[in-house]
Amino acid sequence: MPDRTCALVVIGNEILSGKVQDSNAYFAARELRKLGVSLQRVTVVPDEVPRIAEEVAYCSAHFDIVITSGGVGPTHDDLTMEGVAAAFGRRIVVHPDLERLIRNHFVGRVNAAGLKMAEVPEGVILNDEGDIRFPTVQIENVYVLPGIPQLFEAKLNALKPRFASDPYYLRTIYTSATEGAIAEHLNACLVKFPELMLGSYPRIGHPDYRVKLTLESKDAEYLDRAFHHLLTLLPQDMVVKIE
Amino acid sequence: MPDRTCALVVIGNEILSGKVQDSNAYFAARELRKLGVSLQRVTVVPDEVPRIAEEVAYCSAHFDIVITSGGVGPTHDDLTMEGVAAAFGRRIVVHPDLERLIRNHFVGRVNAAGLKMAEVPEGVILNDEGDIRFPTVQIENVYVLPGIPQLFEAKLNALKPRFASDPYYLRTIYTSATEGAIAEHLNACLVKFPELMLGSYPRIGHPDYRVKLTLESKDAEYLDRAFHHLLTLLPQDMVVKIE
Repeated sequence: MPDRTCALVVIGNEILSGKVQDSNAYFAARELRKLGVSLQRVTVVPDEVPRIAEEVAYCSAHFDIVITSGGVGPTHDDLTMEGVAAAFGRRIVVHPDLERLIRNHFVGRVNAAGLKMAEVPEGVILNDEGDIRFPTVQIENVYVLPGIPQLFEAKLNALKPRFASDPYYLRTIYTSATEGAIAEHLNACLVKFPELMLGSYPRIGHPDYRVKLTLESKDAEYLDRAFHHLLTLLPQDMVVKIE
Repeated sequence: MPDRTCALVVIGNEILSGKVQDSNAYFAARELRKLGVSLQRVTVVPDEVPRIAEEVAYCSAHFDIVITSGGVGPTHDDLTMEGVAAAFGRRIVVHPDLERLIRNHFVGRVNAAGLKMAEVPEGVILNDEGDIRFPTVQIENVYVLPGIPQLFEAKLNALKPRFASDPYYLRTIYTSATEGAIAEHLNACLVKFPELMLGSYPRIGHPDYRVKLTLESKDAEYLDRAFHHLLTLLPQDMVVKIE
């Protein structure tokens, strides 16, 4: 399977103004990692067409997959479709399939605001695989998802089969040493295993350890060799736990 | 006081790979809002010098204040200082005041890794106001903060007096209506009060309301007039609560 990179663009003044804590980025980060997809960038931008357009265009050009979160409802501050259209220089049009779905769903109480949700950039693809009520709009490599966590999660789950890549393998070492005390060993390990993804994460106030080390690779055998090499470098009495 | 815009650049593979949920963005969003500072952008970038440099340079050019979070420890994956230096085309140098602080703090156990934390872009300002152990490095309009939440929060709190701007005023309306049912009223309100910051936030599954409306302005009197105007537009029986 191919290796894929991804960027997430979160759209919403409510997040930038601290009214709501975004949870979609953390959900996406975990789920994409499980799929073997490398999330390389998360951006939160305001409900403004030029800012959305600029960021979507940048991400579309630099990453394999772009996911947007938020700004797709029927009110004045839902500007994601306009932003995405502007990113690709396309017009906004009423999509007949979406209009039909909306008219069927809101029988007898369709108004202009409801029909706004049928307005999408010209030439989009509608993805309706999985357990979702409305299809997910795709334009080029950009997937437009709603911001409400329950809906975002359902729609991302429905898209998983098409994103799956080779998996990451992970080993973890917990140490009672400070980062300063083990930095040289980490550097030495990377000299021998330059392709290793090696993270060093200090934690304040944990009773059992001071630094968590994560070792990752898409090559299970390479990871195994790097893991055992690092264990030989680290002082034995400082290794609290391995996973 | 001046109106100030701000961007936050979070640096860390652990966040992009879903190992850790960032909390610094939410903390910063809330605290900056209370200060009257407009947070306009949050970005999460990986532990890579070119990506850090590109984002810091963009944010420094577009916003009044830039805050970075993470990547300032002693290990191989702590690359924020290099990234910030590259953003401004500056060299990395050992800062004598930082070196002295580190030698005093780690008496008798200073090593190369510890001293790495004295290496900063040439020409930085050290801010030591407030209740913090080590000063916060500033270069141009960029403030470099650590990623560990306890330290990030302490350092941001210490910087607050210098960021404070005119406050935002906020009113909130909770409605039992759907967004589609009230969208036209929101639009009508914005025609009359175009400067109003008006947010519409649907929530699934809340027992008391369907949509939360937030109205904000830095002009208390303007906000009050817009708030009462919107209340006259909305159907009375749909207004559940006001704050």
